[in-house]
This record gives sequence, C-alpha cells and structure tokens, in this order.
Amino acid sequence: MPIDGPLRNTSVSLGAGEFFQLLRDRKPRTRADLIAITGQSRSTIATRIDALMSTGLIGPAGTAGSTGGRRPATFAFQPGARAVLAVDLGATHARLAVTDLASTVVAATDAPLSIAAGPDVVLPWVVRAGRELLDAAGRDVDDLAALGIGLPGPVEHSTGRPINPPIMPGWDDVDVPGLLGAELGVDVLVDNDVNIMALGEHRAAWPQVSDLLLVKVSTGIGAGIIADGALRRGAQGAAGDIGHMVVPGADHVPCRCGNTGCLEAVASGQAVAAALSAQGLEAADSADVVALVRSKGLAASQAVRQAGRDIGGVLASCVSMLNPSVIVIGGIVADAGEHLIAGIREAVYRRSLPLATQHLRIVTSRARVGAGVLGASAMAIDHVLSPAAIDALAA
Amino acid sequence: MPIDGPLRNTSVSLGAGEFFQLLRDRKPRTRADLIAITGQSRSTIATRIDALMSTGLIGPAGTAGSTGGRRPATFAFQPGARAVLAVDLGATHARLAVTDLASTVVAATDAPLSIAAGPDVVLPWVVRAGRELLDAAGRDVDDLAALGIGLPGPVEHSTGRPINPPIMPGWDDVDVPGLLGAELGVDVLVDNDVNIMALGEHRAAWPQVSDLLLVKVSTGIGAGIIADGALRRGAQGAAGDIGHMVVPGADHVPCRCGNTGCLEAVASGQAVAAALSAQGLEAADSADVVALVRSKGLAASQAVRQAGRDIGGVLASCVSMLNPSVIVIGGIVADAGEHLIAGIREAVYRRSLPLATQHLRIVTSRARVGAGVLGASAMAIDHVLSPAAIDALAA
Repeated sequence: MPIDGPLRNTSVSLGAGEFFQLLRDRKPRTRADLIAITGQSRSTIATRIDALMSTGLIGPAGTAGSTGGRRPATFAFQPGARAVLAVDLGATHARLAVTDLASTVVAATDAPLSIAAGPDVVLPWVVRAGRELLDAAGRDVDDLAALGIGLPGPVEHSTGRPINPPIMPGWDDVDVPGLLGAELGVDVLVDNDVNIMALGEHRAAWPQVSDLLLVKVSTGIGAGIIADGALRRGAQGAAGDIGHMVVPGADHVPCRCGNTGCLEAVASGQAVAAALSAQGLEAADSADVVALVRSKGLAASQAVRQAGRDIGGVLASCVSMLNPSVIVIGGIVADAGEHLIAGIREAVYRRSLPLATQHLRIVTSRARVGAGVLGASAMAIDHVLSPAAIDALAA
Repeated sequence: MPIDGPLRNTSVSLGAGEFFQLLRDRKPRTRADLIAITGQSRSTIATRIDALMSTGLIGPAGTAGSTGGRRPATFAFQPGARAVLAVDLGATHARLAVTDLASTVVAATDAPLSIAAGPDVVLPWVVRAGRELLDAAGRDVDDLAALGIGLPGPVEHSTGRPINPPIMPGWDDVDVPGLLGAELGVDVLVDNDVNIMALGEHRAAWPQVSDLLLVKVSTGIGAGIIADGALRRGAQGAAGDIGHMVVPGADHVPCRCGNTGCLEAVASGQAVAAALSAQGLEAADSADVVALVRSKGLAASQAVRQAGRDIGGVLASCVSMLNPSVIVIGGIVADAGEHLIAGIREAVYRRSLPLATQHLRIVTSRARVGAGVLGASAMAIDHVLSPAAIDALAA
C-alpha cells in the first residue's frame, strides 16, 4: 500500500513552503491563528513568518478584533509581491498578460504573430513583447517570478518541448523553457494551448466542478481534461488530442496526419472554410466562417451546424469515457452563435447513455479569449508557489 | 486560487489519522523517528502511539539498532489487525476473498451465481458466503473492518447504488451499501466490476505507472481509468463506459441500448458468440468462444481477431483522449490467446498519433481473475484507513 494523505511529501516538520499554502486563500491571520491551525510551536511560527516576510510573499494585513488588550497583528498573502508573464500563442495570433500571483491581470496585449515563422522569430518576439508589457504594467524584469506559455501543438510535459507539432514547422523538440528562461532569468512552464484554456476556464468560471472538458474549435480541434479537479495530461502530455479521433461515417475524408476520417479533417474551422470555399464562398479560415454565419449565410450556418454534429459524435465518446459534468466549447468557431453548440448538443444527447448525460451541461466559454492567459498564469503560479519552490526561496 | 498542498484537509495539529498514514508503508519506526518525521512534540507522539496501539492498527515491532544504551522500541502497522471482505460479482459468477488490511488474501472462494436472480437472492447469498469465508479464514465477524464489492453494471459513486444496470434486472437504485451494511455491521463500498479490476491490476502489477487503462472483454465491454495514479470515476461514476462508443463502419449493428454500432454489440464475447452460432457453431457465450479458439477453430480465431480490431479502433480514440502508457486487456475473452490482443494492437497502432503510442504497452492482465477482489479489497481498505476513519476510530 502506498503512503497516502497529507504528509506523503514531507520528511521534516512543517516547512515554510507548506506553511505558506495555508495563506494562499488570502485571509489575514494572527500568529495565534497560525499556531492553532498548524499545531507548531510559537517559535517555529515566528521563524516561518519572518522567512516569508523577507520574501515579500506575506505581509502585515492590519489588526484583528480582540477580546481585550492590544489587538494582535495579522498577516496575509501579498499577491502583488511578484509578477507573472502569461503567453497564449495560436496559429496566427499572440496574447500576452502580466498578472499578479493571484492571476489578476495587470496589463494585457494582443498581436498578430505567425507560429509558422519558427522559434527564431517567435521566441525573441515573446521576450521583447513581454519586457514591454512588464514596463507598461510598471513592473521591473526583476519582479518577474515565472513565465507560463501555451503553444498550438503537442508538448511533452516533462521537458516543455513541442513534439512533432503539425502546424509549427521548425519547432520540433525545441527547448522552449531553456531559450526563454535564459533571456528572462525565470522558470518557464510550457503546455499546449488547449490545456491552458482548460485550466483558465476551470479556475475562472467553474472552480467547484470536478470533471470538465474544454473543447477548442478553431483552425484545429483539441480538448483539455479536468478530472477530479485537476488537469490530466496523460503519460506524455498528449491527453485531449481529440482532433484525430474518427468521425463515424467520414472514413473517406483524408487528414494531414495520414489517416482518414479524423475529426479535425471534417469539422475544424479550416475544414468548414474549405467546404464553403468549394461551394464558391469566400472562406479562407475560421474567421471567414464566423463572418459568413454572422452575415446570415445559410450555407455557412448549415456547415457549422453539421460540424457541431460531427464534433458532438466524437464528444459522445468522450462523455462515455470520462463522464464530465460540464463541456465548455471555446475557440473562434464557437463565436458563430448557437449553430455550433446546437449541433454538438444534438449529437451528444443522441449518442450518450442516460447516466452520463442526466446532469451534463454543454456551454460556451465564459473566460473566452482570456482563458488561455489565465491558464498560463495559473500554471506558472502553481509552480512558483509550490511548497518546494517556497522552501527554496525562504531558505 | 485554491489552497493546495499537504495541509489542505487539516485544521488542527497532526491527528491520529494523518499520523497513521506515515506508518502505512509497514516499516518499523522508533518514537525518535516519528518525532523527527513529524516535528510534533514527544508528548503528542506518545498520545498518538497509545491511541493507535489501542485500536490494534499499530503494534510493537521489535527493537532498533542503537549507538549505545538501551535499544529503542519500534512500532509498525499491523495489517492483520482487521479483516476485509472483497466481493467481485459478474453476470453468472461470484468471487469472494477475505484479506488483511494490506490486501493479502487469507481465504478465497468462487461460485456460480446469476446476478439476474436479483438483489433479494444475491445479497443474502453474499452475506452467507462472506460469513462462511470469514469462518474458514479463522476470523470472527467482529474482526471485519469493511466490505468492498464490484457489480457488473453502472454504479452511482456517491450512493453506491446501481443505476439502470442493463444486465441486472431488479437492481436499479437498490441500496446495496445499506442492505449489506445492515447485515454485516460494517461500511460497504460499491463500484462497478471494471473499476475494481483496474484498481486491483494497478496496485498489484503496475504501481509505478501513473496512466493506465484496464479493458474488460467478456459478456460486455468496459474500461477502468487510472490517471495520475488514481482511479477516475467521472462526475456520476460512469467514466470508462466504452461499451457504447461507436465502432466506425458498424453503424448498421443494433445495440440493446437503442443506438447502433456500439462496441459491445459488435465485439463483446456475447456478440462474437452470436456471430459464430449464426455460422452453425456451438457458441452460447464467451466461454464457448474461448473453447472454440483453443480447439483451433479457424472461424473462432478469425472472429476474435476481428473483435480485437474493432475494440482497438475504439481504444485508439481512448489513447488520443487519455494518453495512457499501459493498456491492460482482461476479461474472459482475453483468455483466447493472442488473437484478441493482436487485433487490438493492430488497430491501435494504425489509428493513434506517434506521441501517444511511442511508449505505449498493450498487455494482458497479470492479476487475472484475482484483479477484481484485489481492487475491491483496496477500495475498502482505502476507506477504512483514511485519515478521517482513523481519527474516528482512535478518538
């Protein structure tokens, strides 16, 4: 039997890192509160408070009410102590944000940026734009605690390197954490764009939901999985790669991966654009599809609804597999009004078993375009404020 | 941001329940060891040891080597202190085991039992057979700490009740924990048969693997999901219900669920038996299929291999979704030699992306028929030895 429960990672008495976790909820607490909560001695608590005060991560938070005598001082987490740079890179677009250590956005910016320009162009751009944004936020580079970044392709979780990313020529096995970290002098956390969206959407809009699936429908199609409250990445970080699941009945459609009938080849924004342009409509990409739907184009609305049905057919399999209680549909094609989600709902409810769908909600993203940077920020903060990182910082 | 890390569930100093988790690895430890590990005072440790000694869950474990003077006494977890009853019910068969608190089997038995006889027949049988087995193991009913049971159908995890189980007439919404608990006077943990197999296989054969999928191929087809080291049940406990995922190209095959093209309708032991019997062979169920394959029946071998391909087609979707590093194939049809697994491998490697399959192993069960009772035992033990349960016991 494995050792389970709270102490599995500790080998000494309550260190600064574990102690700090108690304060992450931002509530002010007195020394007496902290002694009562932890069962540690007065002198240990004093040492921990001093160490964390010296890092700036906690600070005085006024005085508490008292039953008499001098009112005791309280301490609380100071999320503004450091800054985090959060980056969400898409196929043709970049979004950056500077946040505090509670994922509150201090400054944000958007820019067109082609990921296909390769790492030699994109990574220096990220460093430059990141420095400018820090400056705009009134923060020094020395204030930076970490950088979180999402990339539009598979990322090996253990190394932070892209692995054979189909729309990212020149990026295979590139040491993104090493290259960005060398320039900015901080730890760099990398994941795919859909996982950071799932993390951002979950933290921002559905923190009480334990099982959630975030599906991004844009140039490609992918999913991020929250199960039992945490992002699940699988053995190599490739979980959620639903774009190459088979669409029943579409076996004849070739996909760039070499197989046929893949969801991405049938129902992505790119696939819908190609189908519409074969009908003589002007549709080069997902944005054109959304524009056509908004201008009341019947063919475009029908095509998006059918894409929804095809996505729903695959999501029915995901529902059978994972039994989520919420499916969030994000990505630019989700902006095409109700057509996409109506098609998805139709197919999911038709194909899934009652136990799995009786409490299932299928909704559009609430955090919307901000989900990615919120997730990138949360990923970086979870790293910076982990017990081990705080122990090292406070040592 | 949620509070994260070891102390998230504690509001006071290290209680008996958390303290006990340190000892679950069964290593003997001295008082001095335990003071050093926990940072608690000598008097707190003495209190915790006394409380746990009084429950019998820890006991003296000889003396440690010492640098001089009297050699200090050590304490260790005593898995034999209590017994657990583990039950694995299939469609037509029951397996029971009495284990200690480390899932070591003390006594086990098998019997034919039709789940379709209904709860009024099956549950009293389980109570009677359980009492007899405890007796055979030399344990009193008072020694029983809990009962873990797997059922061949969907179980709502929060209540332990079967929900519309297709092959269990009369069982819908039956209070299995309440009925068995009233007879045996212990807590009863219920899950579906595939989840307990996944838990048993993981604990017994793959404890170091974090992402594993257990697929049971017998009368029906289902999966249990281990992700990041733990069983994931989804929002209602329905995760892993892959029997009703669509087999591409089999849209014409009707399933008892009301849809068409479900995996179970195409590739379960029952479906293969029906296909063979339509060819004039004697095959009423999965066991007949296995017997035909073993007697070198070409038609049976071909049918099982095709079932493997159909299962593999669906598992390719599961691999895209979950990125496991091990897929274990269990259930009676897996006993038909290499035909089933060869078909599964063929389809999974053809349909999945390289990142997800480069380190993927597809293997047959090691724990075999014992996986279910081992998992039922582990599920019950995790409940009995949880920090909250130990706190209540030692209070």
